Amino acid sequence: MGSLKQIQSISFIGSGNVATHLALAFMRSGLNIAEVYSPNNQHASDFAKMMNCSRLSDLSAINPDVDLVLIAVPDTKIGEVFKALPKIEGIVAHTSGFCSMSELLTAENFGVFYPLQTFTRNKEISFSEVPFCIEGNDEETSNRLADLAKRLSNNVHHIDSPDRRYLHLAAVMVNNFTNHIYHIAGDILENRNFDFNLLLPLIKETADKAKTIAPEKAQTGPAKRNDISTITEHEKMLIEYPEYRKLYSLISSQISKKYHG
Amino acid sequence: MGSLKQIQSISFIGSGNVATHLALAFMRSGLNIAEVYSPNNQHASDFAKMMNCSRLSDLSAINPDVDLVLIAVPDTKIGEVFKALPKIEGIVAHTSGFCSMSELLTAENFGVFYPLQTFTRNKEISFSEVPFCIEGNDEETSNRLADLAKRLSNNVHHIDSPDRRYLHLAAVMVNNFTNHIYHIAGDILENRNFDFNLLLPLIKETADKAKTIAPEKAQTGPAKRNDISTITEHEKMLIEYPEYRKLYSLISSQISKKYHG
Repeated sequence: MGSLKQIQSISFIGSGNVATHLALAFMRSGLNIAEVYSPNNQHASDFAKMMNCSRLSDLSAINPDVDLVLIAVPDTKIGEVFKALPKIEGIVAHTSGFCSMSELLTAENFGVFYPLQTFTRNKEISFSEVPFCIEGNDEETSNRLADLAKRLSNNVHHIDSPDRRYLHLAAVMVNNFTNHIYHIAGDILENRNFDFNLLLPLIKETADKAKTIAPEKAQTGPAKRNDISTITEHEKMLIEYPEYRKLYSLISSQISKKYHG
Repeated sequence: MGSLKQIQSISFIGSGNVATHLALAFMRSGLNIAEVYSPNNQHASDFAKMMNCSRLSDLSAINPDVDLVLIAVPDTKIGEVFKALPKIEGIVAHTSGFCSMSELLTAENFGVFYPLQTFTRNKEISFSEVPFCIEGNDEETSNRLADLAKRLSNNVHHIDSPDRRYLHLAAVMVNNFTNHIYHIAGDILENRNFDFNLLLPLIKETADKAKTIAPEKAQTGPAKRNDISTITEHEKMLIEYPEYRKLYSLISSQISKKYHG
């Protein structure tokens, strides 16, 4: 096998947070963003302006000679968007953690380009440590996508669809679930007229600690100590929040059980 | 009222993580750590060496002329330790988020000195942003404790015992509960031969995001989208983890309900 043909030009389907952050990072590393298609007019127009690329009003009009068509739309839309594409000469890939690569099975070359990260509008992200989970229908496609990811990150992995689903599940937990817990804690404080910001140093340190100590070993608190009287008092304090109380009791009992059998 | 008498000398009851980190920070800001008492011989001896202070083998022998006796022991031990103390000329305070100040009611001057943070052996912490929750039996005691806290932090608050309990409850959530979720996610990955470290950039960004976007607004993911098919697939993937599955279902249903009624 000769040297790989580098991906130089990329068209985006989708103009949300994942698409925007990836496109900006690609642009900064010298790649050409060719075209964008998105049903969201405002986002698509912002995206086209930002990336200095053309905006398509119809998927069938996409230039088939582009090196990569990257589908960065909600999971439930991937199949539908893919079906509307003409035959693409290069690679078609999606950015989903959950969807199988086989959703793109009828393309000539296809793969997955999943960044294991959360992206927020107007909040810059450093890509250099973001894990990229790469998959391709053959070795060449897979390596070309991995080379592309390596232009953004030092943390690139070849991971197949079944494994990637577990990474996505874990990501949902540490991102969405953690965020839900932040919300609950903040809600309780705001109802006592405290500012959510009081929790920020603890939130930061809790995340930071995970870098050096396995969470299992880092655990502390009333449930870890099996301190029933504090747990019971906390449950009483949550009497007006039946949902939060249910969550408090379930997690506390799981932690207690883990450390005290 | 004249100017406050500054706290200059502090004795510690307890030699765990809270005691050690506080004592080091006090020492660095020029305060005198006078004595330490702890039932844990090894910790007490390490503490005494590190702080260059005397180690007591009996609580009744504590020097009653010290400015502050700081009780940094597990919540369930505070009462017992306090009862064993002789009459102290200065202030007696504890560092608990949960226990009421009234546990120390029979002291001459008493209060609470609660740092809203998690402390880990051998992991340095910057105190400058740590919220300190201060309470005193009278204004002078309260102000003297607040002045002491201000030597370590720019984030010092006068907070009474009932309110402090809510802060502690919120702290248990964002620290212990979040840490439990990190553990679960890591466990699932390790069982697929993935490294927990793959989650660290996402963990960091999730925490970081809370600084600029209210968690309620930052929420994303299948439950937020009410994407039942992904949720159901995730639940199937957790078939071998009945406890994790229960937690997954509960949090997902709470998030879905929040955004979709």
